Amino acid sequence: MNARDIIIAKRDGFRLTDEQIDWFIAAYTADEVADEQASALAMAVYFNGMEPTELARWTSAMIESGQRLDLSGLSRPTVDKHSTGGVGDKISLILVPLVAACGAAVPQLSGRGLGHTGGTLDKMEAIPGWQAQLPPDRMRELLDSIGGVIAGASADLAPADRKMYALRDVTGTIESIPLIASSIMSKKIAEGTDALVLDVKVGRGAFMADFAAADELARTMVRLGNDHGVATSALVTRMDDVLGRAAGNALEVQESLDVLAGGGPPDVVELTLALAEEMLVLAGLDGNPAEVLASGEALAVFEKMVSAQGGSLDAGIPVAEYRETITAAEAGFVQSVDARRVGVGAWRLGAGRARKEDSVSATAGIMCLAKPGDQVAAGEPILELHADRPELLEPVAELVASSVSIGPDAPPAQSIVIERILAPSLPQSP
Amino acid sequence: MNARDIIIAKRDGFRLTDEQIDWFIAAYTADEVADEQASALAMAVYFNGMEPTELARWTSAMIESGQRLDLSGLSRPTVDKHSTGGVGDKISLILVPLVAACGAAVPQLSGRGLGHTGGTLDKMEAIPGWQAQLPPDRMRELLDSIGGVIAGASADLAPADRKMYALRDVTGTIESIPLIASSIMSKKIAEGTDALVLDVKVGRGAFMADFAAADELARTMVRLGNDHGVATSALVTRMDDVLGRAAGNALEVQESLDVLAGGGPPDVVELTLALAEEMLVLAGLDGNPAEVLASGEALAVFEKMVSAQGGSLDAGIPVAEYRETITAAEAGFVQSVDARRVGVGAWRLGAGRARKEDSVSATAGIMCLAKPGDQVAAGEPILELHADRPELLEPVAELVASSVSIGPDAPPAQSIVIERILAPSLPQSP
Repeated sequence: MNARDIIIAKRDGFRLTDEQIDWFIAAYTADEVADEQASALAMAVYFNGMEPTELARWTSAMIESGQRLDLSGLSRPTVDKHSTGGVGDKISLILVPLVAACGAAVPQLSGRGLGHTGGTLDKMEAIPGWQAQLPPDRMRELLDSIGGVIAGASADLAPADRKMYALRDVTGTIESIPLIASSIMSKKIAEGTDALVLDVKVGRGAFMADFAAADELARTMVRLGNDHGVATSALVTRMDDVLGRAAGNALEVQESLDVLAGGGPPDVVELTLALAEEMLVLAGLDGNPAEVLASGEALAVFEKMVSAQGGSLDAGIPVAEYRETITAAEAGFVQSVDARRVGVGAWRLGAGRARKEDSVSATAGIMCLAKPGDQVAAGEPILELHADRPELLEPVAELVASSVSIGPDAPPAQSIVIERILAPSLPQSP
Repeated sequence: MNARDIIIAKRDGFRLTDEQIDWFIAAYTADEVADEQASALAMAVYFNGMEPTELARWTSAMIESGQRLDLSGLSRPTVDKHSTGGVGDKISLILVPLVAACGAAVPQLSGRGLGHTGGTLDKMEAIPGWQAQLPPDRMRELLDSIGGVIAGASADLAPADRKMYALRDVTGTIESIPLIASSIMSKKIAEGTDALVLDVKVGRGAFMADFAAADELARTMVRLGNDHGVATSALVTRMDDVLGRAAGNALEVQESLDVLAGGGPPDVVELTLALAEEMLVLAGLDGNPAEVLASGEALAVFEKMVSAQGGSLDAGIPVAEYRETITAAEAGFVQSVDARRVGVGAWRLGAGRARKEDSVSATAGIMCLAKPGDQVAAGEPILELHADRPELLEPVAELVASSVSIGPDAPPAQSIVIERILAPSLPQSP
């Protein structure tokens, strides 16, 4: 076996053999294959793709590069959710305690944000005292007792993916459906969950800008999950406008608390309930998530989750010192709130990071005071910028001023969920 | 400027801008762009190619990464030759002194061999005492006085190419026509020659196995040379069978001496004269290379070249201690002598290197005692293996036994030159 022959085979359009895949991933993880060889292979995969059985093996090899957690023997069925990331996507903060309150164990191992979409850990860390790292034994204990855990993934969960993702990031090889699918699924499968619901976002604020690519990614991941014994289904969901009103770490925690308390923006509630219903089906649990959410039980679980990891909600969620309001230039109905622009704006205000070693601001971000369909008067506030450093407000205000478009008529209402892709063993929707 | 954006632009099929190209090559040469980024870009070029003006700029940037020699002011016009490499290709050893004897200055800066085709420097080093390295001033002096120089290229001739080629070699990105063309032409243009004839070989013993690819490579390089002010033309030539009878360093020097003395295999003479005629046209010189070769003047120039670099032909050319003969299994006409098999055989006997830091044997190699068209009797010797280490003979004998195919009828005679591609300023052949 040598790396060059494997690169050339993929370059020339061949299916890599199981032996080639196993050897390459193991040797790359052990630093025996050079980065320049792995990036050349990644680029060849970008152009020539992978067949389903080839990709399944590739994913297996990524899982085998580290530990696969064993969550068997819990008193609750395990089910998790993964989102491909969007602006204002705080769904995990609500969904994990909600599904736990319905009787499942949700082992959500998460990452930090990079670029214009935030990471779940960054959001949770806006809660004073909350710690992302949990020893495996303690995680099991909490899954059994409380049911919900949000924590950082340990370094020995699919280490090949960790190394490969950092490489792809600097070599222009992120945007490959098989490589994206195997990266996400190797981590989620290694996490040990029995079931998984994927939220694959599509639109101008998402990683996937067009439906065909999002649909292909979702189907590829659903197949990979089920092939590896994880009951997996997916929702393809809209990410053109900011999800909810808040984009920024503490701002999103506050909005999540609002939803857990029975309020919050309707689109956040809609998506949370849709994902919760899918998760309960896969976990084999009955239960009405809307009722559980309204009852306050999910909020109680969230409070337990926070305090189990050292956090406290007693003093409230921190807010930024500096703010600036942007007003509507004209009267009319809000047509859209451009998620990418707002996401980039929140990032520049300090909510996100450009490089993985950067730190983030807990309080920086943007509140969308107007949502699509809202009627506004000229001069009415539509966006509120939050920052720790006042000099960041002005340039971002210019950037995001045009992110809210206003027209004379109310836009058509749109459902967040565009498509459901069910696990093959379950009945398909008509 | 950053490397990732440039890789993505090429991956997505865009023409790189002049600024992107200049920045990338300069930064890569300065170790500011990582190898894993350069290999990803090379793979993207493999798939998406380069437009002619883009490739010209790429080649310019490779030249600008180091020094371009100034050979102006010599008393003779400068003209050089480059071959893409074949088995038994000792043409430079005859052609350089021949064209010098016709009045040109031939600044042949060469490399060493890798894999199954030999390098001109390795062959010259089989001559006792001969040294490849020449200071630039001494090279100028010899070009003026003797006319012919064969020497090693200095490290500051297109250093970007040196670095990039080593990278491409381990990342499966050698086989890209624009990258091959820019690699060859950046070195040859930097060498300072006014004119250049390319010998682009095609066939089972060549780097290019099919005519369409060889033709495209030849046309690409002719355009690049002329765009950079070097009058360039090309011959596409056949490389299915071993060129001449000898494959191996000392064996090829001896065969070259035979041709310079007026004898030698007809195919070697035919190709040498065809290339010499092209070179004289480009150099603006009259002269009949066949007559000059027959006169012994080229041999006299070669002797001067050798002694100017410390070599001596007085004691003869060394021969290997161990030999083994392979005989014809049946009577008939030799149909072909598989250049690749014989090349690999000579390499395994010690004539070539697998890694660039390996040394080579001066005397190891294979003599083809029978050539296509020769009639042989069963049991007649057809190949003679030469080695310094007797244990290498047996395995190579097995490998090359089937390289000579024999049939009942004489094969059709074939011209070595398949196509001529002339410099655009010169009249095209009909």
